[in-house]
Amino acid sequence: MAVTIRDVAEASGVHVSTVSRAFSAPHLVNPETRTRVLAIAEDLGYRPNRAARALTTGRTHNIGLIVADIANPFFPPLIKAAQAQARLRDYHVFVADTDEDPQVEEDLIQTLTKQVDGVLLCSPRLTNRTIERLREEVPFVVVNRRAKGLPTVLMDVGRGARLAVEHLTALGHRRIALVTGPSGSWTSKEMQEAAATMSDVDVVFLGPNPPTELGGLAAATDVIASGATGVLAYNDLVAIGLIEGLAERGKNVPGDVSVIGVDDIVPGRLSRPKLTTIAMPTAAAGRIAVDLLLQSVDSAATAAATMLETALIVRESTGKAHR
Amino acid sequence: MAVTIRDVAEASGVHVSTVSRAFSAPHLVNPETRTRVLAIAEDLGYRPNRAARALTTGRTHNIGLIVADIANPFFPPLIKAAQAQARLRDYHVFVADTDEDPQVEEDLIQTLTKQVDGVLLCSPRLTNRTIERLREEVPFVVVNRRAKGLPTVLMDVGRGARLAVEHLTALGHRRIALVTGPSGSWTSKEMQEAAATMSDVDVVFLGPNPPTELGGLAAATDVIASGATGVLAYNDLVAIGLIEGLAERGKNVPGDVSVIGVDDIVPGRLSRPKLTTIAMPTAAAGRIAVDLLLQSVDSAATAAATMLETALIVRESTGKAHR
Repeated sequence: MAVTIRDVAEASGVHVSTVSRAFSAPHLVNPETRTRVLAIAEDLGYRPNRAARALTTGRTHNIGLIVADIANPFFPPLIKAAQAQARLRDYHVFVADTDEDPQVEEDLIQTLTKQVDGVLLCSPRLTNRTIERLREEVPFVVVNRRAKGLPTVLMDVGRGARLAVEHLTALGHRRIALVTGPSGSWTSKEMQEAAATMSDVDVVFLGPNPPTELGGLAAATDVIASGATGVLAYNDLVAIGLIEGLAERGKNVPGDVSVIGVDDIVPGRLSRPKLTTIAMPTAAAGRIAVDLLLQSVDSAATAAATMLETALIVRESTGKAHR
Repeated sequence: MAVTIRDVAEASGVHVSTVSRAFSAPHLVNPETRTRVLAIAEDLGYRPNRAARALTTGRTHNIGLIVADIANPFFPPLIKAAQAQARLRDYHVFVADTDEDPQVEEDLIQTLTKQVDGVLLCSPRLTNRTIERLREEVPFVVVNRRAKGLPTVLMDVGRGARLAVEHLTALGHRRIALVTGPSGSWTSKEMQEAAATMSDVDVVFLGPNPPTELGGLAAATDVIASGATGVLAYNDLVAIGLIEGLAERGKNVPGDVSVIGVDDIVPGRLSRPKLTTIAMPTAAAGRIAVDLLLQSVDSAATAAATMLETALIVRESTGKAHR
C-alpha cells in the first residue's frame, strides 16, 4: 500500500501539516525537525503527491519561465539555475519561448497563469502597460528589464558597457562602434545610454540588429564603413558573427579591429580569437528570480529591483589600436 | 461586451461546434467554411477562450516537450519547429529540461501529464520499462530513440556515421576514433554499431563522454594517444571542444587530425576551421513529432517509427591523411 503523509507524520511524531511544510515550505520548519521528517519520509518511501497537494493548498507547485528566444545561449544557464533553485523548493519549471513576439508572449502568459503559481518573465518585449495589466492574474518577477511596481532582477550592463569602453580607450582606440540589439531591448538601451556619456572617445551607434551571429555577420560592412577600430557588440553571438564577417572582408581581430561581446557564453571561450566580454551573472539572476517569485507566491510581492554586478573578462579579441 | 463563440456562429451562419472546430481542429472543417469563419471571427475580435474550451472538450491545448539538456544547441531548432507547428494547430508548448537525469525526467512527466494533452520525449534517458509504464497516463511521441509500441521520430545517424567514415577513408585515413556520447544514448549506440561494421579501416571507441564542449576538450589526450588521424565525434559541441583541445596540444585540424561532428549547429558553421558534420534534420523532426502527437491525441496512436534522412556536409575540418 502506498505510504501516506499520515504515516510519515505518525512515524515522525509531528502534525501532518508539518510534514507538508517540510516539503513545500522547508524554510518555515525548524531545521532539526525538517531533517528528521525528510529522513523518515525517505526511509518509508513517501513521495508527496502534487495533485492531491494542489487540491488542499491551491498551489500547483509549478512556475512558468518565459524567454524571448530559447535558441540564444544567454538563456540556458539562467533556465538551468532557475530550475535547480526551484527543485530545491519542490517546484517544477515549465519554459515557454515567445520567438521575440509580444503577442505570443501575452498568449503564453494567459495560458500559463492557470497552471502555475507564478511566472518569471525574462527579457520581455511586452509594453509596460500590458505587463501592468497581466500582473493582476499571477505573481510575476521580471528579469533583464525594469518594470515599475514589480520585483525585478537586473544585471548592470550599463556599468559593463563603461568598463568595455574604458578598456578600449586604454588600448588607444578613439573611435568605437556600438553594435546595438533589437529595438525594445532594455539591455541595448542601457548600453547606449552608458556609452553616450563617455568622454575622450567618439561612439557611433550601428543598429538595430538581430541578436544573433547572423546579425553580427551582416553588421561587418557597417563597422568597417564607420571607421571604428574598437567595437562593443550587443552580445557574444553578435560579436562572434561580426568577427567572422570582418575576417571574410580581410580584417583581422584584434589586429585591425578590437571586438568585445556581452554575456560570456561558452562558444566565446572556445572561439578563435577567444572573446573579450562583459560577463553577465545569468545563473545568479535565475536563482534570485526564483527566490523572489516564491516569496511573492507566499506573501505580498516586494516590488524592489535587485541589481547584479557585471565584470569585464579580457581574452584575445581586444588589442592595441594601430592607427 | 466580449464577443462569444455564439456571435461568430450566428454571423457565419454555421453551428457553434463548427466555429469551435475551425480553431481547434481546422483540418476537420471544409476549407471555404473555415476561411469564412476565421475571417468573421477576426472581424468581430473573437478570441477562443482556452480555459472554457478545456472544460467542454477536456483538452488543455497544451503539449509538453521534455529535453535532456536545454543548453545543448541541438535542441533549440527542434523546440522552435515544434512550437511553430503546434501554434498552427492552436497548441502551446511547455518545455521542461531533465538535466540528463532519469529521475527528474520521470517526475516532470508525471507533473506535466495533468496539464497537457500529450508529451514529446526528446532523447529520453529513461529505461524502456519506465516509458512503457508512463504511456498509460498520456499520449507520447518519442524523438531520437527507439521505443517499442510508441510513435517515434528517428534521424538516421547510423547512415550518417557510415557516410562520415567513408569520407575519412576516401581521404586516406586508416585509423579512426569514434568519440562516443553518454551511456544510454541511442544516437551513440547507433553510431558505434554502424562504425563497427565498416571495412578497410580500424575504428577505436573512446568514451563515454559528456555531450559538451568540455567533453570534447577532455577527450583530446585520448584521441592523440589512440593514434587515430580521423575522428567522428558524438556531436558538434564535442567536435568543437576536441578541436580546441587538439590545438592546445599542438595538433592542427585538419593538418594533423581530421574531425567530423554531428548535428550541424550554428557554432560549427562559424568555428575555425568550419566544421565538417552530419546534418541532423532536427526542425523536421520537431514538426513531424508534433503532427504525430496531435494525431495520437485525436485518435489511437500509430506506433510506427518515422526515419528521417541525414546528410554529410563537408567544410574545413577534414582533409587528406599525411601518414
